Amino acid sequence: MHAVLAQLVADLPDGVVVTGAAEIDKYREDFARDGSAGTPIAVVRAETAEQVQQAVRWAAEHRVPVVPRGAGTGLSGGSSAVDGGITISLDRMRAIEVDTACQVAIVEPGALNVEVKAAAAKHGLWYPPDPSSFEICSIGGNLATNAGGLCCVKYGVTTDYVLGMDVVLADGTLVRLGGKQIKDVAGLSLLKLFVGSEGTLGIITRAILRLIPAQTAGATLVAAFSTVTAASRAVVAIRGRVRCSMLELMDNTAINAVEDWRSHGLDRSTGALLLAQSDATGAACETEIDLIRECCEKEDASAVFTTSDPDEAAMFVAARRNAFLALEQRGSVLFEDVGVPVPVLPDLVAGITAIASRCEVEIALVAHAGDGNTHPIVVYDAGRPEAVAGARRAFDEVMALAIELGGTITGEHGVGRAKKAALPDQLGAEVMALNRRIKDALDPDGILNPGAVL
Amino acid sequence: MHAVLAQLVADLPDGVVVTGAAEIDKYREDFARDGSAGTPIAVVRAETAEQVQQAVRWAAEHRVPVVPRGAGTGLSGGSSAVDGGITISLDRMRAIEVDTACQVAIVEPGALNVEVKAAAAKHGLWYPPDPSSFEICSIGGNLATNAGGLCCVKYGVTTDYVLGMDVVLADGTLVRLGGKQIKDVAGLSLLKLFVGSEGTLGIITRAILRLIPAQTAGATLVAAFSTVTAASRAVVAIRGRVRCSMLELMDNTAINAVEDWRSHGLDRSTGALLLAQSDATGAACETEIDLIRECCEKEDASAVFTTSDPDEAAMFVAARRNAFLALEQRGSVLFEDVGVPVPVLPDLVAGITAIASRCEVEIALVAHAGDGNTHPIVVYDAGRPEAVAGARRAFDEVMALAIELGGTITGEHGVGRAKKAALPDQLGAEVMALNRRIKDALDPDGILNPGAVL
Repeated sequence: MHAVLAQLVADLPDGVVVTGAAEIDKYREDFARDGSAGTPIAVVRAETAEQVQQAVRWAAEHRVPVVPRGAGTGLSGGSSAVDGGITISLDRMRAIEVDTACQVAIVEPGALNVEVKAAAAKHGLWYPPDPSSFEICSIGGNLATNAGGLCCVKYGVTTDYVLGMDVVLADGTLVRLGGKQIKDVAGLSLLKLFVGSEGTLGIITRAILRLIPAQTAGATLVAAFSTVTAASRAVVAIRGRVRCSMLELMDNTAINAVEDWRSHGLDRSTGALLLAQSDATGAACETEIDLIRECCEKEDASAVFTTSDPDEAAMFVAARRNAFLALEQRGSVLFEDVGVPVPVLPDLVAGITAIASRCEVEIALVAHAGDGNTHPIVVYDAGRPEAVAGARRAFDEVMALAIELGGTITGEHGVGRAKKAALPDQLGAEVMALNRRIKDALDPDGILNPGAVL
Repeated sequence: MHAVLAQLVADLPDGVVVTGAAEIDKYREDFARDGSAGTPIAVVRAETAEQVQQAVRWAAEHRVPVVPRGAGTGLSGGSSAVDGGITISLDRMRAIEVDTACQVAIVEPGALNVEVKAAAAKHGLWYPPDPSSFEICSIGGNLATNAGGLCCVKYGVTTDYVLGMDVVLADGTLVRLGGKQIKDVAGLSLLKLFVGSEGTLGIITRAILRLIPAQTAGATLVAAFSTVTAASRAVVAIRGRVRCSMLELMDNTAINAVEDWRSHGLDRSTGALLLAQSDATGAACETEIDLIRECCEKEDASAVFTTSDPDEAAMFVAARRNAFLALEQRGSVLFEDVGVPVPVLPDLVAGITAIASRCEVEIALVAHAGDGNTHPIVVYDAGRPEAVAGARRAFDEVMALAIELGGTITGEHGVGRAKKAALPDQLGAEVMALNRRIKDALDPDGILNPGAVL
């Protein structure tokens, strides 16, 4: 072992610094498996913020790249390991404390989203952000990507729930931002700057998250449309009249993939399925569901089904959440995360269909439709080089299309390494330069997550 | 006129650059009248973003300080003019366009908050953020301070509604951030960084603001308590059970000030008044109001009054909103904006009472209680030097107390110049240094709003 690394191993408690090749291999890639991952010289499985500081100080001294990592469920290669670097894994820092009077959860970054939700629920409280992966993704990763989810359409995204954070900077300094106070405009909005910075500006070692009273069960409406265009028009109409607590879309390809994998009782001939929920209480919920139904029927929904049975609703939501898993059964996948202004959804979808046909790949679509945030999923056969090339081309063309339509290459997954090449096309040279100025100001030696985002 | 200034006058259309002493004087101070204002050499009343760019480019070239200014209703001296500098007033840039399909308003910074609300309302849409000053404050100022208001307790603050902004940087470059897409995590969260930056990082020349379906009228509950402590305990209990659409507090001093000024029918003997609203629909609204009532009665509210008559409700809300105006009738005022975690409200209030007595000044309290954000208002006689000194001491001590209680010196008004001295006490040296690094990266010559915040 190199003498420099030996020093880090000696400085930290036994077992914190992992150097065995087999162990390290488990921390190389995230769920994007984008092929960018190198091999780190060690993985630091930190148990405390102090250990994170020690590791970063060591890395700063020796100019060793540092990749922060949560649960490794990212979909854009944001925590892909770097050759010659270290990966700091936060998976052992999982403490959760709920302050019921302040209605906040004080959490360590390795805690899973589902664990925070569960801890809050014990006190009748709710942490809303709910990525589809909420059962396996970490809060640290959610913060690093400003993760979204299904309830965002009414309840907002991760950044809306962050009141405080401890962040270890590139030189090992730990800064404490915000607190348990709900409103705070003292100084620049540094808290919001670190949220979504994908480990390029600092490493989050603790967060204070806002909780709200538990959501009521509400009711669910499922509507079938002959085309995604019609479903999208219904989405625009619905948004003008109701604040749904969920407004999701699946296209015919996604429906069939889910049915192939495990039947959820969906009609395979459906062009597009809308899944809407209202969590208003009592008669207000019925009113909202009626308004949603009206909007769907105006767009010729062929079948509208409503239920207030939570189990029945859960089945439909599971079908939607399982689309990623189901599509992975069909071949290799590239996960898109493009977003457009909601009324442009039909144009995006039509363009994606054309791209799929041109590149000879299958592209399924699931979407947080109410937010205009879509997940086109490119499915291809990794064994055929021309299929790989077609998939890559499709992946790039979908991002280019989103930009052309005034949208974004990523609504909630982050840029990571998988989408880095397309970022300048969206932001332009001047905004890229502005990103770079902030990055250079906070990490002048560029040791934090090099190769990601910028 | 100095040759350098003559060049700016010549470069911009007639009437844009104001140099007359009497005219300039109107743009020297904001509502804080904190005594920090100098005399600028000119006021640029820009009509377009290009004119803002021209003025900033000129200022950058000649190292002239630039103070951006909205409607001048700020309460912390954030737009106080600087000797030898220019003030760029955005009061002529007031265009508002509503895109109903995207549910956004595209607004210029000089548009008043009330004008954005009105434009949205024409289409059944709503722009929630509502500072007490919403009828006279500008959107640009709201963005610069990340302004809050009464509905924030359920609907969040300005930053939660910003989807896109055009910002003129310190060198005159205009960057376009975000867009009409609702979710976008491409690159660093620059949009959120500029919100609340009080003109120290750039000048906002356009914003894309998210709108939501119009709020329903709902119902109002007014509860009288013998002490602010009891009222605060009720607030904590209410927050655990209901997401009120408003949860405001007035103390006995504020009640009497309002009654002195113009009778709103409030009982002058009341120790503290809570003003709560639910905007849930139908029976759900009744349920929420019942829960609120229960929480109030558990804390021995002496009188609980409810109404679903909008006019009657508006009278109480007006009483609360008018507290600032009413208190200004009693003498000179210093506006505080301290916030603490909600359960600590009673400690803050008790401490403020002690400070008032120690410093021999009157301090009235109105609060966005549901957010723990309070406005202690120090009233004093500016003609008596010892009263001035006492008021200044009280102002500083209240901020110190908020910090000691784990809170903030400003929840929504901004640091400006009035609270600048206390900022390091709250943030500490390391977070101050981090603020400074961002500031230096974006405005290396320090021409943007020098003397404010940092």
